[in-house]
Amino acid sequence: MAGTDSSRQEAAAAGPAIILVRPQLSENIGTAARAMLNCGLTDMRIVAPREEWLSDRAIAAASGADRVLLGAKVFETTQDAVADLHRVWATTGRDRYMTKPVNTPREAASAMRQGEQEGLRCGVMFGPERTGLENDDVALADTVLTVPLNPAYCSLNLAQAVLLISYEWFQCEAATTLPSMTKGHEGPASKEKLVFFFEHLERELDDCGFLRVPDKRPVMVRNIRNMFQRANLTGQEIQTLHGIVHELVTYRHKKAAGKG
Amino acid sequence: MAGTDSSRQEAAAAGPAIILVRPQLSENIGTAARAMLNCGLTDMRIVAPREEWLSDRAIAAASGADRVLLGAKVFETTQDAVADLHRVWATTGRDRYMTKPVNTPREAASAMRQGEQEGLRCGVMFGPERTGLENDDVALADTVLTVPLNPAYCSLNLAQAVLLISYEWFQCEAATTLPSMTKGHEGPASKEKLVFFFEHLERELDDCGFLRVPDKRPVMVRNIRNMFQRANLTGQEIQTLHGIVHELVTYRHKKAAGKG
Repeated sequence: MAGTDSSRQEAAAAGPAIILVRPQLSENIGTAARAMLNCGLTDMRIVAPREEWLSDRAIAAASGADRVLLGAKVFETTQDAVADLHRVWATTGRDRYMTKPVNTPREAASAMRQGEQEGLRCGVMFGPERTGLENDDVALADTVLTVPLNPAYCSLNLAQAVLLISYEWFQCEAATTLPSMTKGHEGPASKEKLVFFFEHLERELDDCGFLRVPDKRPVMVRNIRNMFQRANLTGQEIQTLHGIVHELVTYRHKKAAGKG
Repeated sequence: MAGTDSSRQEAAAAGPAIILVRPQLSENIGTAARAMLNCGLTDMRIVAPREEWLSDRAIAAASGADRVLLGAKVFETTQDAVADLHRVWATTGRDRYMTKPVNTPREAASAMRQGEQEGLRCGVMFGPERTGLENDDVALADTVLTVPLNPAYCSLNLAQAVLLISYEWFQCEAATTLPSMTKGHEGPASKEKLVFFFEHLERELDDCGFLRVPDKRPVMVRNIRNMFQRANLTGQEIQTLHGIVHELVTYRHKKAAGKG
């Protein structure tokens, strides 16, 4: 999906820290940075990365989100990485047999937003690609975060897990809905213009015999009007429809005259 | 996030078709397959892939979701790929200056669930990585689908876009809102029937000269298709429209013959 507009103002920097614990592939760190910035998040923290995390591959994978990578903070231990946070979630796909509350991403996002309003700093931990978080990491969290997915195939790529959590956080704010029609357009035409078109069309349909059965005419007219009503036409579109009907008819007359 | 348990029962196969239009990299097709299966989706359709889509790289990227890849259907045109569907969404990140309703993924998911309950087949189109969908593809859709993201950095990787839509579909319980059409009526026609009508209308409009300016023809055709797309036509209504066009033309010919 293309469409970045770098002239537009960036969403306010805030939101949870994204903590990648012992990530295995620097490429995944780059893709995670991209997913974060898509959702307005910039506080990336990396615990004991296996590879050189600021590699060319990471920067290529970040695809323009490299300032998230460049600003990332690296820690030796998970405990250090979460030290300044007030609320921490641990993402995990399997049962850890720990007595901890479990949140979906949506529930966690809502709790984070509320925490932020109260001045609390939040963070979400993600484990290594192959193994996930260790139980000692999970123990540092207040809450377990599990994405409800197809139980027969729920293994998420690291960056995709980061994306889903970040996305839910962003949507929680963006609850203000999109405009119902693509912008740059006039709204729907007045009913007056619509009825004027209906009358034009029905005159022609009477003329050509389409509405010739008197018993059926009212219901046919209603059905035709209903179709066009539902299309929510703009004034410009109604002009196009007038044009279509007019040209079919005018050409008909021209052709008749020419042949005569 | 590790944690797949293949002994658990797979979520019921259903949900929208995921239509990848002219994807550029087979790796992205594999990653998209993985994202789909994470969310219980299996109906993958590929329009005119640039690379050999069932490559080793695609299968590696699918990471165990290869049966989605193996079951994918390949089409030459977008129109063929959506022919059997009743409701189609076009994902796009930028304004297309078309008058079409716009959904967030959550709104679209809710509408899909509701459509499924009414027996309608749904699909979501995704464009090529670099450029996104062409306007002619978008014109085949009922609704535009835009993910609300950081406006300063909203370019999503193809598989991530597929993931977000699939995820919202999976999260969404069957909508309980009222059906959008009064019951007792047949549902919307398949896209195949709609396109068949478009072709009939456009043939006649070419014939009568309405579409005579070659430079303007594509945008005029698109605008006309968009109007009728929005009307959410039933099969019966499409028959009525065929009848209207046919009778106008037949009458024209009769009149010409009578005058000659």
